[in-house]
Amino acid sequence: IDRIDWKPDAVELGRFEHYMRKEIHEQPNTVRDALRGRLRLAEASAQFGGLNLTARQLRRVRRVVFAACGTSWHAALLGEHYIEKLAHLPAEVEYASEFRYRNAPLDDQTLFFVLSQSGETADTLGALREARRRGFPTLAIVNTVGSTIAREADGGVYLHAGPEIGVASTKAFTSQLVVLALLALHLGRLRHLSYDEGRRLIAALEELPDQIERVLAIEPQVEEAAHRMVQATSALYLGRDLNFPIALEGALKLKEISYLHAEGYPTAEMKHGPIALIDPATPSVFVAPRGGLHAKTLGNIEEVRARKGPVLAVGTQGDDQLARLVDQMLPIPEAHPLTQPILACVPLQLLAYHVARLKGCDIDKPRNLAKSVTVE
Amino acid sequence: IDRIDWKPDAVELGRFEHYMRKEIHEQPNTVRDALRGRLRLAEASAQFGGLNLTARQLRRVRRVVFAACGTSWHAALLGEHYIEKLAHLPAEVEYASEFRYRNAPLDDQTLFFVLSQSGETADTLGALREARRRGFPTLAIVNTVGSTIAREADGGVYLHAGPEIGVASTKAFTSQLVVLALLALHLGRLRHLSYDEGRRLIAALEELPDQIERVLAIEPQVEEAAHRMVQATSALYLGRDLNFPIALEGALKLKEISYLHAEGYPTAEMKHGPIALIDPATPSVFVAPRGGLHAKTLGNIEEVRARKGPVLAVGTQGDDQLARLVDQMLPIPEAHPLTQPILACVPLQLLAYHVARLKGCDIDKPRNLAKSVTVE
Repeated sequence: IDRIDWKPDAVELGRFEHYMRKEIHEQPNTVRDALRGRLRLAEASAQFGGLNLTARQLRRVRRVVFAACGTSWHAALLGEHYIEKLAHLPAEVEYASEFRYRNAPLDDQTLFFVLSQSGETADTLGALREARRRGFPTLAIVNTVGSTIAREADGGVYLHAGPEIGVASTKAFTSQLVVLALLALHLGRLRHLSYDEGRRLIAALEELPDQIERVLAIEPQVEEAAHRMVQATSALYLGRDLNFPIALEGALKLKEISYLHAEGYPTAEMKHGPIALIDPATPSVFVAPRGGLHAKTLGNIEEVRARKGPVLAVGTQGDDQLARLVDQMLPIPEAHPLTQPILACVPLQLLAYHVARLKGCDIDKPRNLAKSVTVE
Repeated sequence: IDRIDWKPDAVELGRFEHYMRKEIHEQPNTVRDALRGRLRLAEASAQFGGLNLTARQLRRVRRVVFAACGTSWHAALLGEHYIEKLAHLPAEVEYASEFRYRNAPLDDQTLFFVLSQSGETADTLGALREARRRGFPTLAIVNTVGSTIAREADGGVYLHAGPEIGVASTKAFTSQLVVLALLALHLGRLRHLSYDEGRRLIAALEELPDQIERVLAIEPQVEEAAHRMVQATSALYLGRDLNFPIALEGALKLKEISYLHAEGYPTAEMKHGPIALIDPATPSVFVAPRGGLHAKTLGNIEEVRARKGPVLAVGTQGDDQLARLVDQMLPIPEAHPLTQPILACVPLQLLAYHVARLKGCDIDKPRNLAKSVTVE
């Protein structure tokens, strides 16, 4: 692998005030780049140049384990759902910093992945080396070509998202989700997933760039929502099923750049404790696009309203029932159940950005944080 | 099974102002009750009356899955560690509210458990029924004898902790941990765990009641710590490995009864985002008893200090290095690595109690919460 050194200073901000906002707005293109050359339309499947595993080897997999940190850990959590839903394989996500020391049970039928935007995250590299030391083949999903993790893994997939300069990861996250969806499609089509279902997912993935454009167009509404959030003392982000990782990631963005304490929870878990926090100064952000359990989510929102908690929601365009129930709804287009979360995370990236901007924070270089954490 | 109706009003508060504090102080006895009759000293193993599974059936298990909510979910997370460490079986913990709808992959070699103090938690009961519907044998770890979950499960283990009246669960949590350690011991001794290691764990479990007494005796120090915490705007709780679930549980206690937003994180994950929150009004509570990775934890604490964050720690008695590094250390006795977390959670229960008391909160009936969540 040739090493390519990106020169951050050479990257132009153009019409944007911050790299983070620029990178959020690049996502229609970066998602397109993550898909490029990886769709096998005729077979309703996906392909990867660098996995270095044959179909026969991938068929023997009985369990998938991911190790990652921070935003990449959230991406892996959605990857777990993708793989369980499309390939019916049990998947697990480990904190890289924990995995490297706990000698977690793995066996020869376990496929092991690490995820890292930079490819230099020390904890993730440690997890990779630990898995290699134990003799497991290791795969990596990274953005930076030629990075240490890319070089040391036995195979992997690049995000091709281009240099990410804002410390809070945005476009790398959505590219990770696209790559994980493609991997799950590939594993699924080696197993029970039908040609039709595979084609439907491919069509949904191809629609993503245009749909993300439409989400980006609601930025003025997100700014209005940011004005509601900026006075909060603390916030909860709620999502269920595939939208739970999106809630976690939305909360992390807010923490990272606005220093407002937000915590993500599975929606239905709220009543088992966190709902005690709800008061008029503690808003809840529900990631609540339409779906099988939408009525239950509406019920959960009503519980928060009854306790005088302000509520924002990311919802499906035209969902008047949800819109009436909340202080403000940020609409995303109707989409395939597996790509909907990718759309749902975009307004939350913008929300964190605008809250931080209103608070006057140093968005591209938040306090206490480094872009790539190369120490333990 | 005969149904026993506990009459909460008949339970005396005695010398305690609140049920929560009374129940915290009952833990030496409730832990003893969780152990009673379950140790097989001559075989360095454990036994259970109601599992309804033979040694031969348990030997065939290849994976363990837990479903639970709230505090029980945290107990299960530690159960995962116990089972992975003692029996080398991969274990997974699901949010009951999610598990019941996601049709997660399970197979015939998966052992499925639900955990619920009340035995009436709607989400957990839903998960149990879903697993039964799919034809899996189901096991339950519950406190309330004759509860719906106890009656519907195919087998299980009672906590014998007596009625828990404070809404924030305390003694049921430590009893769950003891039962999970016994289960892991049993599964381990069907596999690789040696007689010697088994005996050492049994000895450590038998020491627990006296050790918990010693932890309860530091309550005045915990009160002092509560005075430091009460002005905080928000807090982080950090622990690694077996102490990560304890950090989560400590944070949940604080949320539930003091309405102070505290979030738990794996210690090393802090630098991947949450450290941005650190400022002089945002204390960190490290669960940091001595252990293999103690030096790394000390390094993480130094990072927080460098950013002017106040630090409390639960540490091993006599750990002067830790004590010097933090604003205040709450000491717990030196213990077996697997029982140390059970000791570490006690000061955090007391801490939440005293912060809530200083804030004048209604400790036994916190706002927005019910003792047993019998709705979805």
